[in-house]
Amino acid sequence: MMYHSRIVFNLLLLRSAVAFLFHSSSSTRIGVQPRFMFVDYGLGEYSQEVIDSSKSNKWGIPASETLPPLSSTPKAQLENGGKVTLVGSGPGDPELLTLKAVKLLQEPDALVIVDRLVSPEILNLIQGEIKIARKLPGCAELAQEEIYWWAHQGLSAGKHVIRLKIGDPFVFGRGGEEILKFRQYGVESKVVPGVSSAFSAPLLANIPVTHRGAANQVVMCTGYGREGTSPDLIQYHEEQTIVFLMAVGRLRELCDRLVTLAGYPKDTPVGIVEKAGCPSQRTVIGTMETIADMAEKHKVQAPSTIIVGKVVNVLLNTDDEGVAIQGLIQSASQSDPILSSD
Amino acid sequence: MMYHSRIVFNLLLLRSAVAFLFHSSSSTRIGVQPRFMFVDYGLGEYSQEVIDSSKSNKWGIPASETLPPLSSTPKAQLENGGKVTLVGSGPGDPELLTLKAVKLLQEPDALVIVDRLVSPEILNLIQGEIKIARKLPGCAELAQEEIYWWAHQGLSAGKHVIRLKIGDPFVFGRGGEEILKFRQYGVESKVVPGVSSAFSAPLLANIPVTHRGAANQVVMCTGYGREGTSPDLIQYHEEQTIVFLMAVGRLRELCDRLVTLAGYPKDTPVGIVEKAGCPSQRTVIGTMETIADMAEKHKVQAPSTIIVGKVVNVLLNTDDEGVAIQGLIQSASQSDPILSSD
Repeated sequence: MMYHSRIVFNLLLLRSAVAFLFHSSSSTRIGVQPRFMFVDYGLGEYSQEVIDSSKSNKWGIPASETLPPLSSTPKAQLENGGKVTLVGSGPGDPELLTLKAVKLLQEPDALVIVDRLVSPEILNLIQGEIKIARKLPGCAELAQEEIYWWAHQGLSAGKHVIRLKIGDPFVFGRGGEEILKFRQYGVESKVVPGVSSAFSAPLLANIPVTHRGAANQVVMCTGYGREGTSPDLIQYHEEQTIVFLMAVGRLRELCDRLVTLAGYPKDTPVGIVEKAGCPSQRTVIGTMETIADMAEKHKVQAPSTIIVGKVVNVLLNTDDEGVAIQGLIQSASQSDPILSSD
Repeated sequence: MMYHSRIVFNLLLLRSAVAFLFHSSSSTRIGVQPRFMFVDYGLGEYSQEVIDSSKSNKWGIPASETLPPLSSTPKAQLENGGKVTLVGSGPGDPELLTLKAVKLLQEPDALVIVDRLVSPEILNLIQGEIKIARKLPGCAELAQEEIYWWAHQGLSAGKHVIRLKIGDPFVFGRGGEEILKFRQYGVESKVVPGVSSAFSAPLLANIPVTHRGAANQVVMCTGYGREGTSPDLIQYHEEQTIVFLMAVGRLRELCDRLVTLAGYPKDTPVGIVEKAGCPSQRTVIGTMETIADMAEKHKVQAPSTIIVGKVVNVLLNTDDEGVAIQGLIQSASQSDPILSSD
């Protein structure tokens, strides 16, 4: 039994590797325009007015609520073969895709609906049809409707709809909402986890989110509450790490609120990891009191991950007195473990 | 430039795929005993007395503090070629390994030091030498010393030491401690993130850790504080998910404390995911008041992940009134997305 399952698994790997090999060699041909270059994921003919009125369906997309169910009760696979898999693409580096994700992206007949910020290297692995979500500022809801419409069209055509999401589908990624919507269409989705940026961005900057004596708890938050409000704050706890995603735009306000409303000491270490996993990754470290000025000075931009707590200083460079160096750390070997490892 | 980097990347994939292919086909031969079967990771000749005296070095291992540095200042690579990479192996399913992890495990000359609970299917991908940590109850510290000793021996011999850790190296995995130790030996480690069980165990049971209207924050904790004490509690917050790792052994005490000391309503949903990602995965759902009895009734065992908060009921089966079914959900298609997807 044990041998049997091992053989089956190895045969699966073999099949996967053959597909991999075939794809890799065919796509190295110089002069072949990668397919994703043809995809229009800009605004095209749509005006700012149209983008702002995000509920008005002026993109010509039927409202997701009006699309008819394709099965009376949710099924893993429709009679025409249609099905949905939500897949995490990790933080951006294609080498941080899971084997499962790679296998799915190489299905030649799939319809792959991808988040806007998925990297070109990952798009290049996709064998099937590609649709890229137009989730630009101000039109997130309409773009989400368009995703549902594309998925419904794919399911109606009996396709395997692969919804490729940045990071992990269930970590601040609306994965649950999409599953509920696909259930309305009569499909019970499958989900494949991915490496989440919430954990990997600190890791790629050499910041362990937990560390004995420094942090025995980790909290993941976003920088924005509902309708752009400030998020709920968690009271200060000495042995706790907080990771803020999508918060760099209101860093100063966030630090002020943490100090005045949530009991954070002003010298609490804060690290910002900008463009985690990219060749241009940077890490800025400071304190609750200094970090907003430093981020401004160094022009830190989204996408960035903010880490608050003693763990920030556990592994990062220290001076002769063992004090963490306050300042900008350019992506060095220890803050860039993936990209420098070959 | 863009084409060039794409070609380089595809060539890397190609090389990786060839290695994969070769390994996969060679290891499907029936009758070849997998190498890891020879590794002794039981207690062997060591008595209970020896295991309990975990500081006494009765395993015959030199204390990690006494091992000499191999370089005066930490380097990414020693002059003899020795280096260290910490790699996350994910929750157990080999298809949830990253491409990067697979590539590293296939280095023929590496010394791979693995956590005890890494699955046989993953061990079977390793091409180099394998050492399995003997982290059995009561001897965790001594086993950690042995890991450092193995790593030091590997580095002294100019090997690439790959420290393969369950889940993600920095999420309750002592990764930071190991990096500090390897620095003492003169090596600056590299780190490769993995899919963390903290996020993937809920996902594999169809529980989104965040969901608009249900949870905008996630907290990761363990069930044990230092020296076996109860962990610090976070006060109840309506739109927060808490994921407890390594806590099933004290579930009843944990729920009691959350209700009496941290303000949790007795009807707060609680889900337990047992053996996430394994064919025998089970999910038990209940409330703060009922879950301990249910876990006892269904004999839930470690490794299990406990999820607390409204998200537990967002996607799981509901009855005709839309109320989540309280009880045991055997691994069905929606709670077992990876294993049932082929």
